[in-house]
Amino acid sequence: MAEDISRFLSEDIGDGDITTEALVDDQQAVGVIKAESDCVVAGLIEAEAVFTHMGLRARMVVVDGTYVKSGTEVMRVAGPAKAMLTSERLALNFIMFMSGIATATDHLVKIARIVNPNVRVAGTRKTTPGFRKYEKKAIMLGGGDPHRFRLDDQILIKDNHLRMVGSVTEAVRRAKEYSFSKKVEVEAETLAQAEEGARAGADAILLDNMTPKQAETAYNLIKKVNPYITVEVSGGIRPENIGAYANHADVISAGYITHSAPAADFSMDIQETKLK
Amino acid sequence: MAEDISRFLSEDIGDGDITTEALVDDQQAVGVIKAESDCVVAGLIEAEAVFTHMGLRARMVVVDGTYVKSGTEVMRVAGPAKAMLTSERLALNFIMFMSGIATATDHLVKIARIVNPNVRVAGTRKTTPGFRKYEKKAIMLGGGDPHRFRLDDQILIKDNHLRMVGSVTEAVRRAKEYSFSKKVEVEAETLAQAEEGARAGADAILLDNMTPKQAETAYNLIKKVNPYITVEVSGGIRPENIGAYANHADVISAGYITHSAPAADFSMDIQETKLK
Amino acid sequence: MAEDISRFLSEDIGDGDITTEALVDDQQAVGVIKAESDCVVAGLIEAEAVFTHMGLRARMVVVDGTYVKSGTEVMRVAGPAKAMLTSERLALNFIMFMSGIATATDHLVKIARIVNPNVRVAGTRKTTPGFRKYEKKAIMLGGGDPHRFRLDDQILIKDNHLRMVGSVTEAVRRAKEYSFSKKVEVEAETLAQAEEGARAGADAILLDNMTPKQAETAYNLIKKVNPYITVEVSGGIRPENIGAYANHADVISAGYITHSAPAADFSMDIQETKLK
Amino acid sequence: MAEDISRFLSEDIGDGDITTEALVDDQQAVGVIKAESDCVVAGLIEAEAVFTHMGLRARMVVVDGTYVKSGTEVMRVAGPAKAMLTSERLALNFIMFMSGIATATDHLVKIARIVNPNVRVAGTRKTTPGFRKYEKKAIMLGGGDPHRFRLDDQILIKDNHLRMVGSVTEAVRRAKEYSFSKKVEVEAETLAQAEEGARAGADAILLDNMTPKQAETAYNLIKKVNPYITVEVSGGIRPENIGAYANHADVISAGYITHSAPAADFSMDIQETKLK
Amino acid sequence: MAEDISRFLSEDIGDGDITTEALVDDQQAVGVIKAESDCVVAGLIEAEAVFTHMGLRARMVVVDGTYVKSGTEVMRVAGPAKAMLTSERLALNFIMFMSGIATATDHLVKIARIVNPNVRVAGTRKTTPGFRKYEKKAIMLGGGDPHRFRLDDQILIKDNHLRMVGSVTEAVRRAKEYSFSKKVEVEAETLAQAEEGARAGADAILLDNMTPKQAETAYNLIKKVNPYITVEVSGGIRPENIGAYANHADVISAGYITHSAPAADFSMDIQETKLK
Amino acid sequence: MAEDISRFLSEDIGDGDITTEALVDDQQAVGVIKAESDCVVAGLIEAEAVFTHMGLRARMVVVDGTYVKSGTEVMRVAGPAKAMLTSERLALNFIMFMSGIATATDHLVKIARIVNPNVRVAGTRKTTPGFRKYEKKAIMLGGGDPHRFRLDDQILIKDNHLRMVGSVTEAVRRAKEYSFSKKVEVEAETLAQAEEGARAGADAILLDNMTPKQAETAYNLIKKVNPYITVEVSGGIRPENIGAYANHADVISAGYITHSAPAADFSMDIQETKLK
Repeated sequence: MAEDISRFLSEDIGDGDITTEALVDDQQAVGVIKAESDCVVAGLIEAEAVFTHMGLRARMVVVDGTYVKSGTEVMRVAGPAKAMLTSERLALNFIMFMSGIATATDHLVKIARIVNPNVRVAGTRKTTPGFRKYEKKAIMLGGGDPHRFRLDDQILIKDNHLRMVGSVTEAVRRAKEYSFSKKVEVEAETLAQAEEGARAGADAILLDNMTPKQAETAYNLIKKVNPYITVEVSGGIRPENIGAYANHADVISAGYITHSAPAADFSMDIQETKLK
Repeated sequence: MAEDISRFLSEDIGDGDITTEALVDDQQAVGVIKAESDCVVAGLIEAEAVFTHMGLRARMVVVDGTYVKSGTEVMRVAGPAKAMLTSERLALNFIMFMSGIATATDHLVKIARIVNPNVRVAGTRKTTPGFRKYEKKAIMLGGGDPHRFRLDDQILIKDNHLRMVGSVTEAVRRAKEYSFSKKVEVEAETLAQAEEGARAGADAILLDNMTPKQAETAYNLIKKVNPYITVEVSGGIRPENIGAYANHADVISAGYITHSAPAADFSMDIQETKLK
Repeated sequence: MAEDISRFLSEDIGDGDITTEALVDDQQAVGVIKAESDCVVAGLIEAEAVFTHMGLRARMVVVDGTYVKSGTEVMRVAGPAKAMLTSERLALNFIMFMSGIATATDHLVKIARIVNPNVRVAGTRKTTPGFRKYEKKAIMLGGGDPHRFRLDDQILIKDNHLRMVGSVTEAVRRAKEYSFSKKVEVEAETLAQAEEGARAGADAILLDNMTPKQAETAYNLIKKVNPYITVEVSGGIRPENIGAYANHADVISAGYITHSAPAADFSMDIQETKLK
Repeated sequence: MAEDISRFLSEDIGDGDITTEALVDDQQAVGVIKAESDCVVAGLIEAEAVFTHMGLRARMVVVDGTYVKSGTEVMRVAGPAKAMLTSERLALNFIMFMSGIATATDHLVKIARIVNPNVRVAGTRKTTPGFRKYEKKAIMLGGGDPHRFRLDDQILIKDNHLRMVGSVTEAVRRAKEYSFSKKVEVEAETLAQAEEGARAGADAILLDNMTPKQAETAYNLIKKVNPYITVEVSGGIRPENIGAYANHADVISAGYITHSAPAADFSMDIQETKLK
Repeated sequence: MAEDISRFLSEDIGDGDITTEALVDDQQAVGVIKAESDCVVAGLIEAEAVFTHMGLRARMVVVDGTYVKSGTEVMRVAGPAKAMLTSERLALNFIMFMSGIATATDHLVKIARIVNPNVRVAGTRKTTPGFRKYEKKAIMLGGGDPHRFRLDDQILIKDNHLRMVGSVTEAVRRAKEYSFSKKVEVEAETLAQAEEGARAGADAILLDNMTPKQAETAYNLIKKVNPYITVEVSGGIRPENIGAYANHADVISAGYITHSAPAADFSMDIQETKLK
Repeated sequence: MAEDISRFLSEDIGDGDITTEALVDDQQAVGVIKAESDCVVAGLIEAEAVFTHMGLRARMVVVDGTYVKSGTEVMRVAGPAKAMLTSERLALNFIMFMSGIATATDHLVKIARIVNPNVRVAGTRKTTPGFRKYEKKAIMLGGGDPHRFRLDDQILIKDNHLRMVGSVTEAVRRAKEYSFSKKVEVEAETLAQAEEGARAGADAILLDNMTPKQAETAYNLIKKVNPYITVEVSGGIRPENIGAYANHADVISAGYITHSAPAADFSMDIQETKLK
């Protein structure tokens, strides 16, 4: 994380925070960060690391993963005013972007678990280039499953792969040869593909862009072949439709939580520390 | 950009695209990227650079900044199937995230310019850590003004700075001493601050969180002091309210376009190249 | 790989190959690389990348993974003598170290498969810091399974973890909560641990430091609980004893092939290209 | 070293030690590292740096360069169990690989010095790409001379260079022009080359792949020309034959100690710290 | 700065300060740095950072920007002799090069302000590749204006740009469209260009290579168009001629202070700390 | 060099050459670089690499190391105007700074060789942090000896080291133990030290801050002990005094050529390419 913070600070600061350098003396200050909307807060550990990197003392008032109301104070910072002003934006950006994702994830999890208390909500690889680590973490803080961080995490055979190989059975066979240490999952767009994947020995089947009705049929078919296979549902999942899939899936994955969740709003108020 | 692409690919691939390595032979393929929603497309140059980096040939069907309808083909790629499968996600992420921002910006610009054809819509520093360069570019492609990329671009005196210095006049005086090469802007939350900033010699005044009515009064006051001062309006700007401010500002900046614009949807379809 | 090659060249060259700079003019040369011992050759792709990086043309005479006799020519290089002299050592080091590992792996695989044609031989994380990627690749070229490249590849619960958690059952339960996308394996030093791991739902059991007799009993016990569980055997595996375990394991992993296999010997002969 | 450790940890950990994250709480632990074979221990300073980097406290029980018996405790570590589990493998890899080299070097030095107490044993550039610095250090800890770390350390004219230049005399002449600050050494495969190099003003002569008898003749010839010239012997040096060369050399260099020495075996046992 | 210091130390040290390693034990030492010429001292903060990076304690006797006489002690260092010997050269190089620039700047400022107490002396982009940040800082310590650090700091339209665009008016128009946050300056080689730039709305005009007489005319012309435009004079500025321009400029920029100012001379004396 | 050029361009450009981006279209241009003072030109290879990196075609009219008169054209560049304008400054900075050093070196060499045709003029480690590689190269182009690039190049025992060790003899003894591959040099401030170093077996003696008379005596003394020892003279060497030392030294080193040589002046003229 330290290296990322250096890079992100450098992106924001460039050769220097010229406003602060020109205006501010060696004053001491305290800063208070507050939620400006109801949300599951995330990014506090990252914000703390930003402030610590700048030589400030930061204290979390709540821990990451907490649901907070608008107006709640989440972090206090103390130390030189200059460093605080210079690092304010990056710290807030971490909190705002990560809390937005955690909040959207939490929302989906809550809706889905009304229907099926054992279902998992997972992310996808549709994340902002360079920021995936933090987006995946925010998903976990919102109660979700991170799914693959990277292409080397698991073998996931998608439609574009299948077109190259020709058959689901052959694709799964090749995949299982790679290494015993990796799970093998196949994306199925039809019932026939789902069943073929299950029979070929896949560890998991991803039902892509199916209607809830189709997903139900596919789910039952797969579990009949082998009840240990994990069934994942994906494709256009939103708060509006996740409930309809929740009973026909072990895992529901949603690109929405990383590519279209609005940021949560937070503010930081900095005051000079007055000594009597 | 080359260094970013290496880093972003590495974030997505890790030690290897094990699915593709296990499944796909040395086949040749063509890929087609299509918009799945109406949008101002952006990120095509970045996607092309991703594909080129991987040894593929990519051709843009439209140029960045074009408004396209859902279903429009925007790029064609040709070359080894392996490289195409491995780079698909990063290329699409560039296009989806950047097009989302360009589209949101374009939307604001169009609304605002109905009211005031000369007004500019600008971004803020509320961007995803590590991805600002591309988000600012997407703003420009959507017809917006990038505003500061970094803290060293311009002197912008905000509320937290003013609390440290005490007076607007003194803050502007110190700012102007830094270097003749930089513009000096002051954030004003009241009419009095706006006028003081104008009289102190600021190059621009940022009216923060004012009602349209207050903004109008402040705008007129500032221009009376010195018509060459740029007036910027900011704070909670959305498509719903931008029109009400458009006549009382030279520039309107909105965090919304980078922190809460949903991604645009795109898909990529890969087919093996059949030789007769 | 390109970044590694730059770094490795820099490690070997420093500020410059002062011998070559002082001595050699702009001559053209050809270089021939030969095996000086019988081995499974590996590292040719890396050597080719080194030469290409230096502006040379390299051509593989055999492909990586081929078993060659001492004296076999494996690669030819052509281009400026200076670049060839400067890159000779790194190219040879890639080939020598990787071929040593591929050869040792191949040797184990051959012995084990006489007994059990379906058994896999796998590597471990006992690799030279900074060179693991190439060592794992050499294992694969020798016919082995790479096993985990990194700690994030799979959950593998070892003795030191179990001591922290207390029970195998609880450890497996926690592990399965992490993400559905990862396999869970438990190291067992006793029959009781092996059975507990199998019943707790582990995807694989690693039998550590057992005698062949113990391994046989454990293997049968595990497969009785669930025949889909993978059984891995490890601990002091050498050519001398691998045969005795081969019937009681799906996978046999050996640190020996990366930490103690001798390098294979190769030489490079460079001659000036004479033009008539 | 700090930068290497970050890179090496990253190679081993990837995006996270998911086993430890999933299983272990904020427990405190102590770890004990023991030799599992007789060896000259090396890499303790590097292991200590790894643990310190992870926020642990490490204490060496013996210092690098000590000859220890199997079963000897060499290091104790204390601190959070999580950090200890995550860094165990890298620390052990440093110790195992470096101790293997130090032990092999020490063995050669002891054999050679029975014959000639003033002879030096040196390494070569046949080292694992990326790990040379630590391999050279291990050689020194085993009592050896590191020889060139990099191509810019010294001018060493080898057979492939000589073929480009044509004559030993001309090669030495060009080499001496480079800079007065560098030593000039020539590789000789014949008596004639050895004598020509000595007469041309080389600071050192490397006798390559000669029999002990040939080496003896060459050594005497060179010393007659100029007794201040250093004579180095190299080519297939092993414990079996080093004694036969020891009287006819100032330095004997051996690739064997870095490319084919088996690692020394070490284990780490981690226990939770119980508070009463 | 930390990253630069690592890189600069690595440039100077390479794989190790072999002299110090071979010679010096774990002695403690004190070092004293003295000016060996009259100068404005700069680089002390950088030198302190170098020593701190190496684990030494450094104390500034004077602060950067102070004018000191030859023989003045400027810094004291204490700690391990090894670290002090290894870092001496880099610390001195920072001080010598930066003090040379600060001294030359201070000299120009003093001469110019005799004539015009409000004039600023500025640097240019004619700086040593890789060291600009420190050279610009030295200019500021000598009382100068840093001017652009980088091409993205300000829009400055030079002769080569004008040749591409054709007209000053069109060039300024395009420049003002880029972003409201940047100043726009135009280089003028004639009176006509200067007047055209002023009328086109430039924020500043750079008079290049004019005689003092021409500069005077241009200055008056520009100020008549708009008194808020900044007038900069440049081209062959030296201590000998700066006075002649000082009344016809707001800013005078000089490449001389970075590309041709001699270094100031400093020495460091290291003594072992004797304990009684 | 490629990595340096990326870094140096990034230092100069930042997030973009906003002037060129705002003003210039996709025009083609030619650029001509001319010397504006008499000098030994250096840095052309680096300038060419800068232009090539930017996708331009550059052609050297003279080669590095040539003495040119003011007004001489040294390089021609062709390609997109944008890239040319953006890279102009870095290319010129390479040429100006490196030519300044080459010219100063050449001047010293010419003066010294009038007196002693065999004497070498060498640089020191008094170089701009981060730019040493290019400064040393410029010295070589000016006919000088680069001396140590880094602390690991050679053992050089200076006054501060001697104070730590106590005796010259002991210092040399320790130094010779390090590795047979390195030269050992001792700095002597007195005749006694010079003689002691020679007798102790140093490969070279550096006479520091001696008068020409003292240097003569020391030189003769050293050569009497061993004629193969290299004698280096250093300390305040300038064009004015180098002649007086030239007969009493094999090598004369001068910090002046890197820390105080003025840059040579060069200009670049860019014109649009007109197609008929």
